[in-house]
Amino acid sequence: MKKQIVALAALAFAVPALANTADEALTGDIIAWDFVESITTEVGPRMPGTEQEARGRTWAMAWLKRNGFANVADEPFEMETWVRGQELAWVTAPFAQPMAITALSTTSSTGPEGIEAEVVYFPSFADLRDAEAGSLAGKIAFVSHDMRPAQDGSGYGFAGPARWTAPSLAASKGAVATVIRSVGTDNHRVPHTGTTTFAEGVEPIPAGALSNPDADNLERMFARGQTVRMKLLLTPRDLGTTTSGNVVGEITGRDPSLPPVLLACHLDSWDLGTGAIDDGAGCGIIAAAAKHVAAQGRPLRTIRLLFAGAEETGLWGSAAYAKAHADEPVYVGLESDFGADRIWKFDTNFTASDPALFGQIARAVARFGVAPSRGVASGGADLNLVREQGGALIDLRQDGTRYFDLHHTADDTLDKIDPVQLRQNVAVWTEVVGILANREGPILRSAAPGN
Amino acid sequence: MKKQIVALAALAFAVPALANTADEALTGDIIAWDFVESITTEVGPRMPGTEQEARGRTWAMAWLKRNGFANVADEPFEMETWVRGQELAWVTAPFAQPMAITALSTTSSTGPEGIEAEVVYFPSFADLRDAEAGSLAGKIAFVSHDMRPAQDGSGYGFAGPARWTAPSLAASKGAVATVIRSVGTDNHRVPHTGTTTFAEGVEPIPAGALSNPDADNLERMFARGQTVRMKLLLTPRDLGTTTSGNVVGEITGRDPSLPPVLLACHLDSWDLGTGAIDDGAGCGIIAAAAKHVAAQGRPLRTIRLLFAGAEETGLWGSAAYAKAHADEPVYVGLESDFGADRIWKFDTNFTASDPALFGQIARAVARFGVAPSRGVASGGADLNLVREQGGALIDLRQDGTRYFDLHHTADDTLDKIDPVQLRQNVAVWTEVVGILANREGPILRSAAPGN
Repeated sequence: MKKQIVALAALAFAVPALANTADEALTGDIIAWDFVESITTEVGPRMPGTEQEARGRTWAMAWLKRNGFANVADEPFEMETWVRGQELAWVTAPFAQPMAITALSTTSSTGPEGIEAEVVYFPSFADLRDAEAGSLAGKIAFVSHDMRPAQDGSGYGFAGPARWTAPSLAASKGAVATVIRSVGTDNHRVPHTGTTTFAEGVEPIPAGALSNPDADNLERMFARGQTVRMKLLLTPRDLGTTTSGNVVGEITGRDPSLPPVLLACHLDSWDLGTGAIDDGAGCGIIAAAAKHVAAQGRPLRTIRLLFAGAEETGLWGSAAYAKAHADEPVYVGLESDFGADRIWKFDTNFTASDPALFGQIARAVARFGVAPSRGVASGGADLNLVREQGGALIDLRQDGTRYFDLHHTADDTLDKIDPVQLRQNVAVWTEVVGILANREGPILRSAAPGN
Repeated sequence: MKKQIVALAALAFAVPALANTADEALTGDIIAWDFVESITTEVGPRMPGTEQEARGRTWAMAWLKRNGFANVADEPFEMETWVRGQELAWVTAPFAQPMAITALSTTSSTGPEGIEAEVVYFPSFADLRDAEAGSLAGKIAFVSHDMRPAQDGSGYGFAGPARWTAPSLAASKGAVATVIRSVGTDNHRVPHTGTTTFAEGVEPIPAGALSNPDADNLERMFARGQTVRMKLLLTPRDLGTTTSGNVVGEITGRDPSLPPVLLACHLDSWDLGTGAIDDGAGCGIIAAAAKHVAAQGRPLRTIRLLFAGAEETGLWGSAAYAKAHADEPVYVGLESDFGADRIWKFDTNFTASDPALFGQIARAVARFGVAPSRGVASGGADLNLVREQGGALIDLRQDGTRYFDLHHTADDTLDKIDPVQLRQNVAVWTEVVGILANREGPILRSAAPGN
């Protein structure tokens, strides 16, 4: 429960008695917590394209205005919207029992009667890839690719294809449905949803993720050497085109003609949880940092917040924002979208070309335990605009060890956030954004538009 | 996942190179794991009075016969059976969002349309008790009594009344439904079910448990000072009288005329999980210990296993067994029904009256880290027969720190069992049962029938 985490967190960091704003943020920030505590309580799940997501935008605009942000707006865009229906799974033979499942977005419905078929077991994505064309005709593919925790989140790249493309691949080989082991690192009966993509010309099929304990159980059934059959009832539906939107707000700089610092997060969430770590925390972190920088005095450049819409089901908001603002150069882009645990290292895409700025940032964040890294920043999902401009990017990388325990599950709730680690994020962001928003010259890149 | 626990477990205990049977059980027992791995995989949930519970009995009888037990039988009894229906909850105002809920057994249905009403918040059971008669007319009572972990499981006695009697108390004050904070110590979206009891003359109402994160969220809504309304859809139903049964089996002693050592567990489980820690593990532990004792040579006394039926919804099997065997004296009774974590202390109800036996047991289990305790053993739920006979009881007490994270939830699955701690249980039970089953004289009690 929340109180337990708070109690542990209080022991986790000593409180330094330093005096600048970043240290105040570290020891005392309440803005980020206020944001995420309030949005999870007062709005809850914010599924892309739905009325709940719209309620989130209304709520966020009121919050931004109340907290002194300028030029607060909802920039609408259209999207294709998928919503969950019933979701039930049962092994019907040889060992009849129910299983915990959740549908993946863009998948189709089994219809109200469900479907029942033999299950074919693939321990990994590669095993499915090796299956012969037509070999899954009339069957359910079970892909049990197993993810482990990694601090840098790299387990997602390892296990992710089981969700991203296995249903399409299985459909192309004749499967009537696909069930995957959740792309997640916990062992609770809360399956991990997410989006899957069907290749051009492949008709979508029903597909869902089993919780890890259920996938373990199904593997044990296969280990007994008998034919396994499963019934699935998954009734998601496409709502067609609906309206979502990006919420924006600004700390206006002393020279608004200069390209702004763009801070991004996404405001939507999956429907299963309340969008605390994904990505209420991220929006709270960037908003808190912007406020702390503004409290030091009006910055040279405008700090622009992008609370993107409809990230989860296809980066709709990022695309819409990039299109709407294509002609507006950005000085540098940063996104917070990896939970609320501490920042442990950072990457940029100007490490070699602008070592002075890289070094300045490294020195500023070192006392918060953040190490410089030689990786190349690629920016968060909602920074399409900056990528398309070839602009400067910084990735303040959070500890992802716990992130995929919770990612895209019903367990993404406020109690999972450690307030002390949340404050470390705010402190680091405050330092970095303060440097960037008050910096005059261009960020030197090999090819450096947008400065 | 299972593999992670196995890897950790392998580091947790050094493997002593000792030679007696108990040490073989500690270092090498595979029987208890085989039992619980198999029943959770091949049967799964075993809800009292249902066909799934009957499948569990058929499975268990086959397992006992295959493992050399004698006099294996299913002793049927009749019971009143309650089964779960749909279960959904939504806050409808002021902050509309869904909540994870599960119904408590013996509660009534909201009907297919559900009910919607204002919610009244009671931080603790005592607060509900203090509410005035009639003050809940037309309302939903929310009792948020908060449980914390305790090694000896004592948090259950502290928080349990919120489940056991709050719905009845709320109904008596006019409530149309009750929601409670789960009686559990985790923070996952898997609510804890269980039985509640309506007092004589109080008409049952719908009642369910919210997961702890949802109860936290609901408390935060109340902290905002507005009227909270909730819709509940809970459609359990009573199936009337159905048949359950107790499965028994024996290691026949050299002198079958002597009162047997009775080892109990329960074979049924809640429907939400697969009954791994509650109580597949317990049945596996007692069966493994009995086998290990038999492997040392036929014991003097018969060791009788009672795999009780229908414990969860009202100790039906325990009552039926006590009635059917009332005239058969038992030498001593022990039950394993508190998960699969290590035994850390033991109680008896003959500590003062038979210090020699108490001391013999204490010396035998000390090397497994089990301390003698001065508590008075009261026996497990399925030992009504022994209690009614005033017989000897021993409680081998397991570490309950984690138990109520999982108790009565969907998370009660095999992956939660640490095989090394499971083996410690088997080792301790093997030592204790070996002493008892080969002991000639009576167990001295102040009033000691059944010796």
